[in-house]
Amino acid sequence: MIRLFVPSDLKMQQLVLLNENQIHYLFHVMRLKAGENILLFNGRDGEYRAVLTELSKNKGTARCETQTRVQEEEKPLNVWLCFAPIKKDNMDFVVQKATELGVDQLVPVMTRRTVCKVNTERMRAQVIEAAEQCERLSVPVVKDPVKWETFLADFPDDRTLYFLNERGAGVLSAKAKEGAAFLVGPEGGFDEKELTALSAMPQAISMHLGRRILRAETASLVVLACYNQLLGWKTK
Amino acid sequence: MIRLFVPSDLKMQQLVLLNENQIHYLFHVMRLKAGENILLFNGRDGEYRAVLTELSKNKGTARCETQTRVQEEEKPLNVWLCFAPIKKDNMDFVVQKATELGVDQLVPVMTRRTVCKVNTERMRAQVIEAAEQCERLSVPVVKDPVKWETFLADFPDDRTLYFLNERGAGVLSAKAKEGAAFLVGPEGGFDEKELTALSAMPQAISMHLGRRILRAETASLVVLACYNQLLGWKTK
Repeated sequence: MIRLFVPSDLKMQQLVLLNENQIHYLFHVMRLKAGENILLFNGRDGEYRAVLTELSKNKGTARCETQTRVQEEEKPLNVWLCFAPIKKDNMDFVVQKATELGVDQLVPVMTRRTVCKVNTERMRAQVIEAAEQCERLSVPVVKDPVKWETFLADFPDDRTLYFLNERGAGVLSAKAKEGAAFLVGPEGGFDEKELTALSAMPQAISMHLGRRILRAETASLVVLACYNQLLGWKTK
Repeated sequence: MIRLFVPSDLKMQQLVLLNENQIHYLFHVMRLKAGENILLFNGRDGEYRAVLTELSKNKGTARCETQTRVQEEEKPLNVWLCFAPIKKDNMDFVVQKATELGVDQLVPVMTRRTVCKVNTERMRAQVIEAAEQCERLSVPVVKDPVKWETFLADFPDDRTLYFLNERGAGVLSAKAKEGAAFLVGPEGGFDEKELTALSAMPQAISMHLGRRILRAETASLVVLACYNQLLGWKTK
């Protein structure tokens, strides 16, 4: 059944207005008709089966009929992925896969060797689409791009920051616990000044992922996979 | 430095003929000239720095000058990735990332719900390119596509086969050891008959990757990442 993210509150009998893209998708692409069912979630109120009360080229509304999942069913994975923006296709890939892997926040960090721009509007559309498809009840937060110095200065004291570095001290420890952040550099890695600054942060830990050279997009996905593995794939 | 895979033997002073694609790449794309250095590996003799003795539009030769790495430096990860072929872009992605993550064999398996074709020639070119880039000393073996029944009948008794299934018994165990195979189904998963056949295999273990719905290409990469994590990212 088609699953859509909506910003509005969801409760029994709530009438929900669908947006233009959703109307286009349901009407033109999926060719649904009034009377058919969809699933709705908003990141707060679980998931509802809703019946399409109206669906035409210009208008779409749905009414919540049954709560299919409660929000508490999904335990959020309290993890941030901080990354130097990379090329478009690879960036799309990271955003989609990170959502599937339960990331809570995506933070674009402009390191000195970062040469790619970032399109946060595109990323925000992608996390919604990925959340709809992978059956998450929540949508990751996409932060605005942050300058390197600001990122370091504002980073919370009580969150472990694992930064990936080929020369890292060790692999992700089995002692890793919830409330972490991963930082993945650009193609070419962090520069020496950046590595020095990171090493000076008491909450930062360097780590490597073996001695093969992983591409930036591979590394992002791999750390999130390993983190899930270490936490036992708890999503509930 | 540019790194190329060659089939020929490599030893000190060995003269190596480059193939048409390699010549095109070095001459037209990278604009190298005779006298410049490249790195060569063949999966058996480690890695050599070689000097281009001749490079023109039609001919390219290089002579091994120094051994830069010995083959024993890289401990192969004895793991197979068996998968139902998926759409081209996603398939490309799996092949590239699996190579980065040290897979030893790629086995396309034609399950009943598999609808995509597989281009093994393309895959064989991709594993070489990925191995060149990620600094592997070996290139994964790409097997010819195998029918479901043949895959099951021929699967070795002494290799654990982890098959991914949303309703799997548990997650990848910390007891996982070298010499495993992972089997990832197509979009839509395995059918009931296939699951029954798998469950009847003494060497097969069902596993899940949490309760979110991972795409097939995500699942392939995630299991390999977790396997590396459990084995401590040993590549040497």
